[in-house]
Amino acid sequence: MTNDTARIEAFSDGVFAVAITLLVLDIKVPPVSSPGDPLVILLVRQWPSYLAFATSFATILIMWVNHHRIFTLIGRADDRLLFSNGFLLFAVTVIPFSTSLVAAYLGHPGQRTAAAVYNGTFILAAIFFNVLWATASTRGRLLRADADHDAVQGITRSFRRGVPLYTAAFALAFASVTASLALNLILAIFFALPTKLATKRAAKP
Amino acid sequence: MTNDTARIEAFSDGVFAVAITLLVLDIKVPPVSSPGDPLVILLVRQWPSYLAFATSFATILIMWVNHHRIFTLIGRADDRLLFSNGFLLFAVTVIPFSTSLVAAYLGHPGQRTAAAVYNGTFILAAIFFNVLWATASTRGRLLRADADHDAVQGITRSFRRGVPLYTAAFALAFASVTASLALNLILAIFFALPTKLATKRAAKP
Amino acid sequence: MTNDTARIEAFSDGVFAVAITLLVLDIKVPPVSSPGDPLVILLVRQWPSYLAFATSFATILIMWVNHHRIFTLIGRADDRLLFSNGFLLFAVTVIPFSTSLVAAYLGHPGQRTAAAVYNGTFILAAIFFNVLWATASTRGRLLRADADHDAVQGITRSFRRGVPLYTAAFALAFASVTASLALNLILAIFFALPTKLATKRAAKP
Amino acid sequence: MTNDTARIEAFSDGVFAVAITLLVLDIKVPPVSSPGDPLVILLVRQWPSYLAFATSFATILIMWVNHHRIFTLIGRADDRLLFSNGFLLFAVTVIPFSTSLVAAYLGHPGQRTAAAVYNGTFILAAIFFNVLWATASTRGRLLRADADHDAVQGITRSFRRGVPLYTAAFALAFASVTASLALNLILAIFFALPTKLATKRAAKP
Repeated sequence: MTNDTARIEAFSDGVFAVAITLLVLDIKVPPVSSPGDPLVILLVRQWPSYLAFATSFATILIMWVNHHRIFTLIGRADDRLLFSNGFLLFAVTVIPFSTSLVAAYLGHPGQRTAAAVYNGTFILAAIFFNVLWATASTRGRLLRADADHDAVQGITRSFRRGVPLYTAAFALAFASVTASLALNLILAIFFALPTKLATKRAAKP
Repeated sequence: MTNDTARIEAFSDGVFAVAITLLVLDIKVPPVSSPGDPLVILLVRQWPSYLAFATSFATILIMWVNHHRIFTLIGRADDRLLFSNGFLLFAVTVIPFSTSLVAAYLGHPGQRTAAAVYNGTFILAAIFFNVLWATASTRGRLLRADADHDAVQGITRSFRRGVPLYTAAFALAFASVTASLALNLILAIFFALPTKLATKRAAKP
Repeated sequence: MTNDTARIEAFSDGVFAVAITLLVLDIKVPPVSSPGDPLVILLVRQWPSYLAFATSFATILIMWVNHHRIFTLIGRADDRLLFSNGFLLFAVTVIPFSTSLVAAYLGHPGQRTAAAVYNGTFILAAIFFNVLWATASTRGRLLRADADHDAVQGITRSFRRGVPLYTAAFALAFASVTASLALNLILAIFFALPTKLATKRAAKP
Repeated sequence: MTNDTARIEAFSDGVFAVAITLLVLDIKVPPVSSPGDPLVILLVRQWPSYLAFATSFATILIMWVNHHRIFTLIGRADDRLLFSNGFLLFAVTVIPFSTSLVAAYLGHPGQRTAAAVYNGTFILAAIFFNVLWATASTRGRLLRADADHDAVQGITRSFRRGVPLYTAAFALAFASVTASLALNLILAIFFALPTKLATKRAAKP
């Protein structure tokens, strides 16, 4: 039922859109009554908020792009798809919190814990993406009859790399929190690229 | 008019998506200036927030799934449907508040009141679900001509159990608040299951 | 272009859905550290928040229902429609603020000002609804060719009453703030009814 | 693929709708316990919040209108479109923060910095609009086969003026912050007008 997946996509789009926009609430306006320092300095000092905001924005955007990609290949919905999609949205919904946490603690005691929670949310999302994709694509159960085989294989390969890569970012946080965040940004770019070819093919009329 | 129900679904999806994502605002970042305790401890101490968040997320998700299910069977809209749907959305909109309340008071004096409000919101939602479904399905007035009869019956049976079950969770709160919350989680899973068969049939081409 | 109005409706649905759900942020969780009074009492004392929340929820819902109704009759979009719709959304977006204001000040000095702002927002919305409808319906410029003439007339009559009625609620606030809020709730119900007949006709296949 | 652009539009509509509605969170309810001054005075003193709110609302609305316009001409999506659209949404998402900042600092030390950040966000958005449009329209790569040539040219001309005009508003902030904000409001109106003709043509059946 096209109709079935249409409403799952609409609800998911809503959750992705709200979550990505709520991220901005983590960037605080410095209190006007602050003594001494000019506003420029106060704003520059908030760089961890900007780094966390940009990384989370890029990650949620890529997650939406991938969600969009896999649903162009899915032709039917069933209860298992509804629930595995729900688990993925759970992880997406947590991101504004884990982003706040890492933005608040970067450069303070506890930053390693904060970065572990932040990366943990991404590992969770990567796991749920694999579950969602397996639910849809195992033996092609919910895929469209005309789903491009190479596109399907490309997504499977790309998603499989997600869990180990985000686990690496998780581990890196114990060496350097900033390096771990930088790796997250790089991963967002990486997940933007590899299925490029596959998607282009899938988008062919 | 397909068009009629399409826009009701779009507006409802928006409310469900915003409400489910706003839940995360209830999970607070521990203040950085907290003395002594490491962040891990501070985060672990917030477990009532996580339990309330997960329970409410699961409940709103199941409510959305059920909303989605019944609208696959509804073929026409009228004013009574618009308003009974509005009452349901009212209950959905209150959930982020009742979730905050129970998250804040769990383990403190007043936790019974908080859990009663929390369960009360769910009872309200269960009542409004029955009203919405009755508006649509009584004598099949707004159902699609091809709506599967077993699916319709399955939903009626499943929804009828909602009010007594959530009333039980409400009553249980006076014995044990944690047990009441646990029952809520179980109910979310229960409402995910019983009409499974019915929906699968309804989803058949 | 059906497509044109489809996206205006989608964007408007988003704004209505976010605004109606943000209202709940005005209901505050009483601080856990409050001395003495049991939670029930603290919650009961917040009744102005619940009254304001319910009134605003009902009002935004009715506004959405009316928006939905007029767009079932509109067949084409142009720039003037985009902008008059934008003005209406402006008023909708302000409602969460005016609701907070009246909820905070009800029963305190300044409650008359708060109620005036609250009703002022509704007058503004009523004016913009008339502008939007005039933009679409004057000489039938943007209406669908098959738009039911009685439905069009019914909406014109109903909307014309909006500005004087909300102005009455505005004036009433200077005599009694609570009576003014009650009138707002009654108006929401009133605007739910009068075009009922018209809409039913419009919904006919 | 119509389907492809449909979901990009839905997600973008969600982000625009959430961002434009979140703006209202910047208008604060004056604390009830404020000594002395009547509420009217307290509300009037918040005029910078209202000016910033109205300017940002108008700007996001115009951005949405323009987004809507260009997507009526775009017939296909590819990865580059997804990402250039993502960059634009990034700028939209930042606006509620930059609006808070300018609302808080207008009339206080640091107002020039705040206005520079505010205008900087708009320059960024103007740049990303040009990138998005270039991605879609260069050699007509993603345009619909029947896209009106004059409409395409009109958008290209209009967008090209965006960056210098917002840079002028940025520069003006160093002379007068209020004049700079006023120019922003004027620019929102300006960007509402110039492609009027083109859009009307594009909307022709």
